[in-house]
Amino acid sequence: MDYQSILEDIDAQVRPLLGREGRVASYIPALARVSPHRFGIALRTCDGEEAAAGDATTPFSIQSMSKVFTLTLAIRGLGEALWQRIGREPSGSPFNSLVQLETERGIPRNPFINAGAIAVADRLLSQGADAKAHVLEMLSGLCREPVHIDAEVAQSEADTGFRNTALANFMRGFGTLDNEPARVLDVYFNQCAIAMNCLQVARAAGYLCRDGAHPYDGTAVISETQARRVNALMLTCGTYDAAGEFAFRIGLPCKSGVGGGIVAVLPDRLSLCVWSPALDPTGNSLLGRMALELFVARTGLSVF
Amino acid sequence: MDYQSILEDIDAQVRPLLGREGRVASYIPALARVSPHRFGIALRTCDGEEAAAGDATTPFSIQSMSKVFTLTLAIRGLGEALWQRIGREPSGSPFNSLVQLETERGIPRNPFINAGAIAVADRLLSQGADAKAHVLEMLSGLCREPVHIDAEVAQSEADTGFRNTALANFMRGFGTLDNEPARVLDVYFNQCAIAMNCLQVARAAGYLCRDGAHPYDGTAVISETQARRVNALMLTCGTYDAAGEFAFRIGLPCKSGVGGGIVAVLPDRLSLCVWSPALDPTGNSLLGRMALELFVARTGLSVF
Amino acid sequence: MDYQSILEDIDAQVRPLLGREGRVASYIPALARVSPHRFGIALRTCDGEEAAAGDATTPFSIQSMSKVFTLTLAIRGLGEALWQRIGREPSGSPFNSLVQLETERGIPRNPFINAGAIAVADRLLSQGADAKAHVLEMLSGLCREPVHIDAEVAQSEADTGFRNTALANFMRGFGTLDNEPARVLDVYFNQCAIAMNCLQVARAAGYLCRDGAHPYDGTAVISETQARRVNALMLTCGTYDAAGEFAFRIGLPCKSGVGGGIVAVLPDRLSLCVWSPALDPTGNSLLGRMALELFVARTGLSVF
Amino acid sequence: MDYQSILEDIDAQVRPLLGREGRVASYIPALARVSPHRFGIALRTCDGEEAAAGDATTPFSIQSMSKVFTLTLAIRGLGEALWQRIGREPSGSPFNSLVQLETERGIPRNPFINAGAIAVADRLLSQGADAKAHVLEMLSGLCREPVHIDAEVAQSEADTGFRNTALANFMRGFGTLDNEPARVLDVYFNQCAIAMNCLQVARAAGYLCRDGAHPYDGTAVISETQARRVNALMLTCGTYDAAGEFAFRIGLPCKSGVGGGIVAVLPDRLSLCVWSPALDPTGNSLLGRMALELFVARTGLSVF
Repeated sequence: MDYQSILEDIDAQVRPLLGREGRVASYIPALARVSPHRFGIALRTCDGEEAAAGDATTPFSIQSMSKVFTLTLAIRGLGEALWQRIGREPSGSPFNSLVQLETERGIPRNPFINAGAIAVADRLLSQGADAKAHVLEMLSGLCREPVHIDAEVAQSEADTGFRNTALANFMRGFGTLDNEPARVLDVYFNQCAIAMNCLQVARAAGYLCRDGAHPYDGTAVISETQARRVNALMLTCGTYDAAGEFAFRIGLPCKSGVGGGIVAVLPDRLSLCVWSPALDPTGNSLLGRMALELFVARTGLSVF
Repeated sequence: MDYQSILEDIDAQVRPLLGREGRVASYIPALARVSPHRFGIALRTCDGEEAAAGDATTPFSIQSMSKVFTLTLAIRGLGEALWQRIGREPSGSPFNSLVQLETERGIPRNPFINAGAIAVADRLLSQGADAKAHVLEMLSGLCREPVHIDAEVAQSEADTGFRNTALANFMRGFGTLDNEPARVLDVYFNQCAIAMNCLQVARAAGYLCRDGAHPYDGTAVISETQARRVNALMLTCGTYDAAGEFAFRIGLPCKSGVGGGIVAVLPDRLSLCVWSPALDPTGNSLLGRMALELFVARTGLSVF
Repeated sequence: MDYQSILEDIDAQVRPLLGREGRVASYIPALARVSPHRFGIALRTCDGEEAAAGDATTPFSIQSMSKVFTLTLAIRGLGEALWQRIGREPSGSPFNSLVQLETERGIPRNPFINAGAIAVADRLLSQGADAKAHVLEMLSGLCREPVHIDAEVAQSEADTGFRNTALANFMRGFGTLDNEPARVLDVYFNQCAIAMNCLQVARAAGYLCRDGAHPYDGTAVISETQARRVNALMLTCGTYDAAGEFAFRIGLPCKSGVGGGIVAVLPDRLSLCVWSPALDPTGNSLLGRMALELFVARTGLSVF
Repeated sequence: MDYQSILEDIDAQVRPLLGREGRVASYIPALARVSPHRFGIALRTCDGEEAAAGDATTPFSIQSMSKVFTLTLAIRGLGEALWQRIGREPSGSPFNSLVQLETERGIPRNPFINAGAIAVADRLLSQGADAKAHVLEMLSGLCREPVHIDAEVAQSEADTGFRNTALANFMRGFGTLDNEPARVLDVYFNQCAIAMNCLQVARAAGYLCRDGAHPYDGTAVISETQARRVNALMLTCGTYDAAGEFAFRIGLPCKSGVGGGIVAVLPDRLSLCVWSPALDPTGNSLLGRMALELFVARTGLSVF
């Protein structure tokens, strides 16, 4: 398939719509000032073929897409033991996440809601390494380029993160976290502030379409079963409360972030990243989502 | 792949465990007296190859598996308009289904929770046909054998269905149902009381792995896009509150019923039905689930 | 105290405001066509002194005010055993009533939310008497005038009562109701359709300010302790989700109905009924509430 | 009435039951080591008559009883403006308090749930005074004895107060708090750690039965209307999720604390404090509650 042409066509279709609908995340200044006129898309196949179009090499804040990679690190370190602290079910609605944390005794529903990702960060801290450095190192190793944290974004996240602070303290009260909430949140706020571009993310996620094998050197990042399970979690829980809608319309494991990025995986075929900062009401990139629908319609690729 | 051997091996592995764990549904006598020592499994590939083992030709109550077929009828009749009355997101928990019906103004979360299937039954009634006959006719046509309703089960469902009656009246109050609750429930209780065996179900679901094409004559039951979407809904919402767990461990679109059946689909490959009456705490067949895990481990087949 | 002058002054203050704010209940035609320009107020002291102003002798639909009297009958018949089926705590919010019914296994929070009153009606049915006749007989006996059911209202309630039908079936599923939902609802819909005027209601509630003694003949309707407890329930649960607000601003045990009536009790002093059909957003009579605030401000009477 | 004899009788009835049922609060060591064999009761009438029995002069941690006094300070400083940040309705259940904070956009249901009291503490901080000193000064002035904070309890509250930290951060995220969560919580944890004895509390609460007038010098602590409203809030919201039950069985405005104290008010008659550390499942003093029931039964005093 001529992926480069397909991505260029999608870029051509989407670009005229930039800035018309949706809203850029505005809860911190560094995100609010990103132009809604940006759109990038990149993919990398299992065979190492790459394609990219639009602003595919412009860095953006990966935000919740980071949760895929911290989850991967935690799974690698802990295996099945991880699931004693975190569930694997969709949360149903934003409303529910907090209620469920209460009714389910502090165990977050899944690793992709904020509470779950904070619990994953706690696990990384308990693994003893410098968790922040560990995440950066992993990402740099996967995409073969240096990756860094945007310090301004990290600081802003910390300054305004009252709700995440609430979640961390709530879980600490239930015993879900072993480490001090402030330390755990430091990891979490920093992982969300990592800056990458579409091509880097598409490369980094390559192990998810290669049964867990590193996209460049083929070593096992995680096992085949573990890679499948990360994909399953992305499909059922990766796009906030639009997971059903994404499965219905796109049919690929995806993880989105409020920076406007969405990473998608087609097992045994390719990994893909799309970015456009304006969000729809569910907090997912409006045109990123449209681009994925176009990609699936054009290629006929989907897990279903 | 030698599917027949694989199914026989699974039967051999599972059979010694029958009757040990789990509980047969007991809310109506006709279900309660089914022996927990039953196990059947059958599949049919896109090419028409079939395999079966155990009690694969013993009829059982398909219960909520019927929701896949009534949804298919409603989609065929209404297309996208169906989704004005029913959502497409996982419900999160049994607790939530009712809360969400309240907070979401009577729109059920998805067509596979009871409220959603009742709303689908209402749509079938409004299509003007004899809805019960229509469902039977469709199933008989798909599996090429006559299919009937177990009248005793239907009557028991009606006699004890206070909660479903509550849901129907609740939705009627919100305007989600156009028809009288009693008439809608008559369709719903009867569709749940349909009796089929594993082989029949595996055949009937064949259109879901064939891009919507009839398993025998290849005519379009629904479109390719529609078939994908039904599969997506099965994966995200088809197994009560264990959908995340099923995706994580099995990775196939599945729909289960409290009669102990589970129908699973591997797009472009095969459709499969497993049956064992004892249920786990989530209401899914305990050994049926185990059999699916064995099947996936043995064949390496999964959508992820 | 010159109650007659006080009530006339309140009538004079309130009358110019009639028809300006609030909305008459519109879910059934018989209620919707009541003029919002009506206002009546009446009281009866423990000593038998009476005062009335405005439309105090115009009958209106007592609706949920009937719950005070059916509760009284159930307490008289069952004593403490009643509380095995019904709680005594405020429900918090309309939203919660249904959630709580779910999380609290079908036990309604208190006898004044709809679910609770339906459970009370079930208890009256199980006491063997003709429950509807029993309620009418009690009310007629208390106010010494014949009291009847408005058949049109009763029929409309039944025709549109999907939500109450849902509640009844839901509770029946949990075993809270012993009788068929349809029979229980027949009692409930009819009690809500009773027509009385302000003076009749003020007289009928007289036992609540007289330690349970009949307002005319002094015989025990219920015991002193029971009367106190009904008052306590009215104060904490009698005005939907504005109970805290009523306690805060008025400080009297009250029970309101969507017909626009509110019955209030000042223990050892008087019982009072006010009526004005336009409701505020909490479902309580807008000007009835204002009239009660004026009454309390003017007389300095309150339980606090 | 011979209050001294009545309290001595109650002490004699309750004392044999000490240590049999209920559990002393154990979430911090300083509370956990209080003996369950303690019982004290004291009252002060509007006329200045006092009575006391049992351990009425042994200091204990007043905990949530402090909320009555901080609310009083906030009402005095802010009047009606206070209610822009805090509601006045019962919360229904512990479960709901958090859900409601979410669905009601960070506005706590009432000033006596933890979230509400934290919001009150924020208001005190914004009034500019040294809030902790202000509360102590008010209490010392009311009971005419020096009152202090138990530093060990305050520290323990801070060390283990993850849930309250969560609530404060959650409200700060909604804009309900103007001050830093850590500063607000410092006030809150310290007010809960105030140590007083039954007689001191009965005296300090004297303004609530005297229409807001200081128990000793008669100056206005708050207005008559404000005092009534504090009483109304105590009755509807003062005893966690047993407010309906307290109103039903006792019928007095009460505020309890997990230290085992309960302060009660009979308007125009007396204020009373009872203390016994073992709690019932609703978090209220088990024998304190029983003592109040005995007091009401013996004296016939109740607001209903």
